[in-house]
Amino acid sequence: MTVTQKMETCPEEWIALAHRLADIARPIAKQFFRTPLDIISKADDSPVTIADRSIEAAMRAEIEKTFPDHGILGEEYGSVRLDGPAVWVLDPIDGTKAFISGMPLFGTLIACCVGGIPVLGIIDQPIQEERWVGANGHATTYNGTPVHTSQKTALAEAIFYTTDADFFLNGPDKAGFLNVKNSVALTRFSADCYAYALIASGSIDLVIEMGLQPYDYCALAPVINGAGGSVTDWDGNPISIHSDGRVIAAANAELREAALQAFLL
Amino acid sequence: MTVTQKMETCPEEWIALAHRLADIARPIAKQFFRTPLDIISKADDSPVTIADRSIEAAMRAEIEKTFPDHGILGEEYGSVRLDGPAVWVLDPIDGTKAFISGMPLFGTLIACCVGGIPVLGIIDQPIQEERWVGANGHATTYNGTPVHTSQKTALAEAIFYTTDADFFLNGPDKAGFLNVKNSVALTRFSADCYAYALIASGSIDLVIEMGLQPYDYCALAPVINGAGGSVTDWDGNPISIHSDGRVIAAANAELREAALQAFLL
Repeated sequence: MTVTQKMETCPEEWIALAHRLADIARPIAKQFFRTPLDIISKADDSPVTIADRSIEAAMRAEIEKTFPDHGILGEEYGSVRLDGPAVWVLDPIDGTKAFISGMPLFGTLIACCVGGIPVLGIIDQPIQEERWVGANGHATTYNGTPVHTSQKTALAEAIFYTTDADFFLNGPDKAGFLNVKNSVALTRFSADCYAYALIASGSIDLVIEMGLQPYDYCALAPVINGAGGSVTDWDGNPISIHSDGRVIAAANAELREAALQAFLL
Repeated sequence: MTVTQKMETCPEEWIALAHRLADIARPIAKQFFRTPLDIISKADDSPVTIADRSIEAAMRAEIEKTFPDHGILGEEYGSVRLDGPAVWVLDPIDGTKAFISGMPLFGTLIACCVGGIPVLGIIDQPIQEERWVGANGHATTYNGTPVHTSQKTALAEAIFYTTDADFFLNGPDKAGFLNVKNSVALTRFSADCYAYALIASGSIDLVIEMGLQPYDYCALAPVINGAGGSVTDWDGNPISIHSDGRVIAAANAELREAALQAFLL
């Protein structure tokens, strides 16, 4: 397969590996969750830093053992073999602020990309033992059961989540953000990757965020797309490992278009 | 006992009843969680409304059966016998917006007041099966194990939660809110009653809110006070059933004082 071909169906062995990686992450995240924290900064050896590094190291070892020719891009330990036939993109603990607050809304994000395009994604919540799995050619599942996004296509009915309003309110996207906020049924904050998982499950309808890294967003696209949803960058392009970190995710393409129109004014 | 005496120790039978009420609530909340919602408004018979009413009706029946002379003040069905020797204050689903978003952060709040002062409180998260219990004369417990608030006394170290910044940003408390937000280590949103529970567990340190009803705040005070924390209104008075709905809760009295000072400018 060349990198220009779209992978129609993600191999079962890759999905099996992704599950093993999430299984490896869970007990480590649990071990450090709600342990005392002296300093919030990630520069020190706080529990979240230790958990982050321990999880990523363990996941990387499992990938190296299973597919030694595959590449890896991780939040903590950088990248290897980005020209490999597939690249695993790992965020051991997405939602550091949730983790250090004792909020069970952080997640372990695992993606696999081919030609830069995510073809497999897992959002795993270790504490609640909730797992969303999306992969090309497979319906997205929540703890093994297929899920579907909501049928809402009108902004006025949508439940909108974004992690931090300040990202918008202190920058050039303030007017667009307020336009979306004033158009939807409900706006809520501080949900990190859990919000994207709730789009896949049909509980909420829209997330708009910026400043994300590939390990923050690559896993989200297969999960939401495989449940009937739609994820792009703010220009409407599909998500890739090279996206600019500005992401819009919605329950369906029609709602995503309506939200983008309201957001870009 | 007259209503002017402080109840030093909450009777075991009352604590046992409070546990039974939370046990009654859990399966009903679970049954309606993440079911499809057509309309968000509570004016209709949405799943959250049905769950709210079903839970409160079942809890009220159990109170009537156990202590027919006790009063009840509930969110859905109003009040009876507010002059009784004790008054049970019930919020079947606190955090309606979390509930309808599929976020497992809403809670069932159960308080018992004597002379208007809460002497017993439960914060129960039905989906994650997490229960915080505080009662006069007893250490606060989380799923049966004693918990303690954090030792942080400086605002600069504190993790601050509040449900909705708009309550502050669109009113006279904007400057005070921004002063607190700029003084703390981390500010997060949209956590409802779960944030208060995390103060009791020592994971976060500060919550400031307004516009709360007795059924929103009465249960919080015994839970946090019994874990070493401090809850008052914005004037520094202890919480009672007659408070004005402006609540500040902190890991300890020193931090609460520091936060109030920053907030009131």
